[in-house]
Amino acid sequence: MTRPTHGGNLDWAVTLINCPNSAVLDFSASINPLGPPQSTIEAIIKGIKQLAHYPNPDYPQFRQAIGQHHHICQDWVLPSNGAAELLTWIAWEAHNLEGVLLPSPCFADYKRALNTFNIPFESYGLDELAMGLKYRGNVALLVNNPHNPTGKLWDKKTLIPYLQQFPLVVIDEAFMDFLPPNEQESLIDLIPDYDNLIVVRSITKFYSLPALRIGYGITHPDRIKKWQKWRDPWTVNSLAQLAGIEALKDTEFQQKTWQWLKPSREKLKDDLAQIKGLKPLPSSANFILVETRIPSPQLQLELLQREQILIRDCLSFPELGEKYFRVAVRTQEDNQRLSNAITQTYQEINSI
Amino acid sequence: MTRPTHGGNLDWAVTLINCPNSAVLDFSASINPLGPPQSTIEAIIKGIKQLAHYPNPDYPQFRQAIGQHHHICQDWVLPSNGAAELLTWIAWEAHNLEGVLLPSPCFADYKRALNTFNIPFESYGLDELAMGLKYRGNVALLVNNPHNPTGKLWDKKTLIPYLQQFPLVVIDEAFMDFLPPNEQESLIDLIPDYDNLIVVRSITKFYSLPALRIGYGITHPDRIKKWQKWRDPWTVNSLAQLAGIEALKDTEFQQKTWQWLKPSREKLKDDLAQIKGLKPLPSSANFILVETRIPSPQLQLELLQREQILIRDCLSFPELGEKYFRVAVRTQEDNQRLSNAITQTYQEINSI
Repeated sequence: MTRPTHGGNLDWAVTLINCPNSAVLDFSASINPLGPPQSTIEAIIKGIKQLAHYPNPDYPQFRQAIGQHHHICQDWVLPSNGAAELLTWIAWEAHNLEGVLLPSPCFADYKRALNTFNIPFESYGLDELAMGLKYRGNVALLVNNPHNPTGKLWDKKTLIPYLQQFPLVVIDEAFMDFLPPNEQESLIDLIPDYDNLIVVRSITKFYSLPALRIGYGITHPDRIKKWQKWRDPWTVNSLAQLAGIEALKDTEFQQKTWQWLKPSREKLKDDLAQIKGLKPLPSSANFILVETRIPSPQLQLELLQREQILIRDCLSFPELGEKYFRVAVRTQEDNQRLSNAITQTYQEINSI
Repeated sequence: MTRPTHGGNLDWAVTLINCPNSAVLDFSASINPLGPPQSTIEAIIKGIKQLAHYPNPDYPQFRQAIGQHHHICQDWVLPSNGAAELLTWIAWEAHNLEGVLLPSPCFADYKRALNTFNIPFESYGLDELAMGLKYRGNVALLVNNPHNPTGKLWDKKTLIPYLQQFPLVVIDEAFMDFLPPNEQESLIDLIPDYDNLIVVRSITKFYSLPALRIGYGITHPDRIKKWQKWRDPWTVNSLAQLAGIEALKDTEFQQKTWQWLKPSREKLKDDLAQIKGLKPLPSSANFILVETRIPSPQLQLELLQREQILIRDCLSFPELGEKYFRVAVRTQEDNQRLSNAITQTYQEINSI
């Protein structure tokens, strides 16, 4: 089994060290360790009775729940088979433009979607975005906020001018819900004012339901209607819909997550910073990008074989290569196991 | 709520007559009334524990199960988010050709997928296909076997010459599994000999799991790899995968379905043929297309309001319009209720 460059990390890991899924402490996928919430599990179990009925292609209850959650009319939202499905349709949306500007580094799936339809793209540096991108012309701008894999958050003030500058602006906010409401920098409330704005959100990561595939897009109703005609009628499965509705209503789980994340992340970052040879980057999301002197594939293998701990090498981000790894923030206990294991591995490799 | 032209019929019906889903006897969706099999329900319930893990984008276990079921190497198969997802990629596959030939009438989703990418299409008559299509040139041929909505089955001998005639041949066999193995006319066993052949299959209909979205394609491994690069990595949710694996192994459920279908369908067809004003077509699938003197939208409304029975008008098949309706074959008891209700409705409307 070859090392995966994009997803499938856990299966690769368990095959390599020959153990069950549950034996691996997985820091490679950026999933909330507190979930899935019980409310969503109950909704899924109830939904099993309804599996013999097609989903309603309009997904009215789910759209209503998303609309209520964001205080926006449901005509402006579209549930999707994970956020990744929307990247496909956003790429096709761009086929009439001259190309798309992507952050560097970026989530590999942006390029997948653009390559499918032969849409040209260029990269911009993260600093450039903060300073003011100079590009003009008939190209779309894609921003990932907070940014994966760095965890960098841009404020609204930085992004708003781009809505005038570009004919299409896509903000992938897949990790925005990990910030408490008063710290979020979402552009969703600008949606009614800008018909060239698309916001992409995920339910998968915050509510720990990646296996079910749940995301949504928010944009002008004309674009929503167009996408509904483009895509097949039933892309979102019914259990995803039921779980998504309950997830967005679960304020207790949301509070618990916000309370867990910040102190856990800062503690993990501080602990990693203590290890000579590592440089963790500040992050607003539920993961930390770490510069490493020991090449990340080597460190990844050592941690897996010694401690059944899986970190994410950054080979799917070619700009980062072997100099970085990414870890999800997990419970304080798990995080401690991670820092201890890395400390020990670093000491042993350095002493060889 | 407006009358749906494509899917969502049940939601429309329950809103119209203001009753719960379960109160409607649904003949509109062509779903096996014996399912879902218990084996799939158990697999889904077990899978709920694994929802916090992404599906493996290669879907190795599911591909292996499909491969074993059809005695073909797993490199030749690709699970999909329902058969409808594959129609999207088949349409994009055709963007380098001059167009696509579609049966008339046909499943509306073929045109949806082709329109998305502005692929031209032309229609052929069902008799033309049997007699020998005269078209030549750089176009793809799409055949639906058995054909929806007529239930017509073409034999392999009729189809095989087209594999020489067209650069791309797509056989949508979404309902083929409803025929017992010795009556099937699948082209799957020809797949290794023709790299221009794509077969589309559904798990949704035979195993009554449309809510979960499960289908697969069978074609040359190079095309499978290309599609995997085109589409997002995780289109098939993990519960669909687990259910799909169990479904294909459930030979007891398969036997039970084959034993139920044929006598039930023939009895229903005979009963409908007794009603003056109706002309049911012979069918090899789990549905029957019926010519009706009373316009189908009127008959549909009457049956719904009097008897909470939902039949499928054929408005999504423009060639058929109001002159036809389609009904799924259900249990003998349900089918009897349907024929009785139609008999009565016909008598009352005729006597006005």
